[in-house]
Amino acid sequence: MDVKPDHRIGKNAMHLALFGPDEVNQEYIKDLRIQGFVFCQGKTGSMETNKIVAAIETAAKRNGVIENDVYRETHALYHAIMEALHGVTRGQVLLGTVLRSVGLSFSVVRGKPYQSDAEGEWIAVALYGTIGAPVKGAEHEAIGLGINHI
Amino acid sequence: MDVKPDHRIGKNAMHLALFGPDEVNQEYIKDLRIQGFVFCQGKTGSMETNKIVAAIETAAKRNGVIENDVYRETHALYHAIMEALHGVTRGQVLLGTVLRSVGLSFSVVRGKPYQSDAEGEWIAVALYGTIGAPVKGAEHEAIGLGINHI
Amino acid sequence: MDVKPDHRIGKNAMHLALFGPDEVNQEYIKDLRIQGFVFCQGKTGSMETNKIVAAIETAAKRNGVIENDVYRETHALYHAIMEALHGVTRGQVLLGTVLRSVGLSFSVVRGKPYQSDAEGEWIAVALYGTIGAPVKGAEHEAIGLGINHI
Amino acid sequence: MDVKPDHRIGKNAMHLALFGPDEVNQEYIKDLRIQGFVFCQGKTGSMETNKIVAAIETAAKRNGVIENDVYRETHALYHAIMEALHGVTRGQVLLGTVLRSVGLSFSVVRGKPYQSDAEGEWIAVALYGTIGAPVKGAEHEAIGLGINHI
Amino acid sequence: MDVKPDHRIGKNAMHLALFGPDEVNQEYIKDLRIQGFVFCQGKTGSMETNKIVAAIETAAKRNGVIENDVYRETHALYHAIMEALHGVTRGQVLLGTVLRSVGLSFSVVRGKPYQSDAEGEWIAVALYGTIGAPVKGAEHEAIGLGINHI
Amino acid sequence: MDVKPDHRIGKNAMHLALFGPDEVNQEYIKDLRIQGFVFCQGKTGSMETNKIVAAIETAAKRNGVIENDVYRETHALYHAIMEALHGVTRGQVLLGTVLRSVGLSFSVVRGKPYQSDAEGEWIAVALYGTIGAPVKGAEHEAIGLGINHI
Ligand SMILES: [Mg+2]
Ligand SMILES: [Mg+2]
Ligand SMILES: [Mg+2]
Ligand SMILES: [Mg+2]
Ligand SMILES: [Mg+2]
Ligand SMILES: [Mg+2]
Repeated sequence: MDVKPDHRIGKNAMHLALFGPDEVNQEYIKDLRIQGFVFCQGKTGSMETNKIVAAIETAAKRNGVIENDVYRETHALYHAIMEALHGVTRGQVLLGTVLRSVGLSFSVVRGKPYQSDAEGEWIAVALYGTIGAPVKGAEHEAIGLGINHI
Repeated sequence: MDVKPDHRIGKNAMHLALFGPDEVNQEYIKDLRIQGFVFCQGKTGSMETNKIVAAIETAAKRNGVIENDVYRETHALYHAIMEALHGVTRGQVLLGTVLRSVGLSFSVVRGKPYQSDAEGEWIAVALYGTIGAPVKGAEHEAIGLGINHI
Repeated sequence: MDVKPDHRIGKNAMHLALFGPDEVNQEYIKDLRIQGFVFCQGKTGSMETNKIVAAIETAAKRNGVIENDVYRETHALYHAIMEALHGVTRGQVLLGTVLRSVGLSFSVVRGKPYQSDAEGEWIAVALYGTIGAPVKGAEHEAIGLGINHI
Repeated sequence: MDVKPDHRIGKNAMHLALFGPDEVNQEYIKDLRIQGFVFCQGKTGSMETNKIVAAIETAAKRNGVIENDVYRETHALYHAIMEALHGVTRGQVLLGTVLRSVGLSFSVVRGKPYQSDAEGEWIAVALYGTIGAPVKGAEHEAIGLGINHI
Repeated sequence: MDVKPDHRIGKNAMHLALFGPDEVNQEYIKDLRIQGFVFCQGKTGSMETNKIVAAIETAAKRNGVIENDVYRETHALYHAIMEALHGVTRGQVLLGTVLRSVGLSFSVVRGKPYQSDAEGEWIAVALYGTIGAPVKGAEHEAIGLGINHI
Repeated sequence: MDVKPDHRIGKNAMHLALFGPDEVNQEYIKDLRIQGFVFCQGKTGSMETNKIVAAIETAAKRNGVIENDVYRETHALYHAIMEALHGVTRGQVLLGTVLRSVGLSFSVVRGKPYQSDAEGEWIAVALYGTIGAPVKGAEHEAIGLGINHI
């Protein structure tokens, strides 16, 4: 089934995370830019939650999705990342502490999802991957989405 | 970009929730059955979390995704629903209690996502929709995924 | 296997909850009093968490386990009840809100579990019962223990 | 000891909540306006968390601290209220559900707490009051602070 | 008071944890096997939650309570361990992170607690021990029970 | 605006934390002693939550706010610290694990806040400071208050 980006920032971000950076096609990316969104994708995996947070923040800054030196932008992104992590961790935002590890494909998307210009820019962080014991195959899928005004 | 179902039960469930029951095409549904999955889709919205849980459980039973009268099946589904709700609620599994409401498209998918037959059947509950004040437009997207062995 | 009370207030309370008020034998009760503990037992069931809290508090006051009109005693008991409820609810202290109900046997035990008199009195709340859908048989066991200085 | 407002939005908001709307003096209010902040104060009490949220949001809109019809402003305020409630509830954002009630003095303060103009406006919600059983005197103090970019 | 195992998997598991591996008598163990349950007991203590999880999982695998190489079995056990840890930690599943340590006696019990064969096998993880500062004597009791279908 | 201590232990503790140990004036301290409270103030900062807990406990013991070797006193203080940390962390009592750090001014106050002598002594832990990325300036204020009977 064909999927196209639209104004829905969360849906777009989730599709990017589900495709992953290696499989998304150029047409989707082109249409997403036409929709007015700036975005980045990446992969990260760790038993340490702070490494996951850092990887997403670094990618967002390097790819110009958020400004490097403006705290309000980092603050908006940080809370979107934390909210997305709630979907992945489902109760306790802990990985290695509770003997589990994640491998994630992520996306960060920024733009104007609302009709009214007064609503300004919003940011979405989407995560898709696997979570489980640090043993190959002993894992199942996990997903998370965080959305914030920026 | 074209998306097809594969063995990944969570990804399939999330695509169904993102499409919604009204927009998913017959080809996707046919391919999902060929993959060996049974599933259902639906919509639900409420300020009461228990109504959301009930709607998903009712749909799963009516559509034969889980058995009607086997508690272990209800138990597996219940925990998958609760885990998905964590993604939507991100910290406190509360809606009206904290003055918010959701409108959700959901899917429940059941089948064998692992290569080894010994891994048996698993169940995935995916949610996609909006969450916010009980005022039209005052909402943003939310997503959740719960996976359990069944 | 024979179980006898000892200085361990939590273990004693948990045994009382596991026995239930109808099955505990007089010998256990007598030995518990000899150990210097005052206690009460009861049963409560509800979809409303506040009714569970109220039932335990009422029983503790009626049976003289805590004083009626001293807030510090109610405060100590309240937190012990809440901690015990964490064991029963395992993440979200919610029952009907998430479409589940409990039937519990409870005990409240008060006394001096430590060797040193300086450690004073402590209070334990133990819960044992079942939790599940409000449908007969669709439930499994749950346990909780809360301990506080009083 | 004399306290004056400064650029610290959270400290200012907390002082307003600690003073309460009836006791704050005109000098403090005047100095807070000179600092460039807009704000409101109020009181609310309930066993229902959603009523607390609604009271703070209503006061903020009525007093022009946030715009009436711009969702991004309501979103920023909502999350600040929820974060403040975490301080008051300390684990489960529940009141009546767990047999407790609050009486709160609140403040909402908006302005620029950072030196750099690029950091823009932020909003702080501060809460101070008592929490306990719905019985007079059976309560102790509680405090919360939530801060968000807006 | 004499306690005998019965069909209640959680109660049986909790009794095993309360007795501990050194004090449980052969009669209880024999009766538990007659009831159709397989089980193991052990002790573990740490400031690191992941070591507690690992110890219980290792014991369960070594003693044949769950299969070594079937992820669905590890998944069922993992969630039962996590649920039991909620009873012990009561809010945040953290030990050393919040300056506390546990010493636990645990049991893992597997079997059929329901009358209907269709309900299949379930698994229970019970924990009993002490939790407190990493200073001898500065601790109180804690208990947890997790139950899952397997 | 002039602030004076009164019987309200939480408000007094919060004022001490807001002033900080370097700025509180002797008059406030004298009046607080006249009110019958014993207290201490300090500063602590870390990415490790357990270091924050340890710093507050050490200060309370060194300054005679709680006894050194009486576990019930440490237990009362510990839970008050944890409750205060909920206000600062707002959901997950984690710092470095989620890539954030705090710098806090704290106070511990002990005394009798209630009219009736039967209510005995209570203890309050108040925290005020900043929380954010371990990068200077990338932080905002945070506050917490925990109150317990002792
Ligand atoms: Mg939001
Ligand atoms: Mg799982
Ligand atoms: Mg404790
Ligand atoms: Mg923040
Ligand atoms: Mg369950
Ligand atoms: Mg309290």
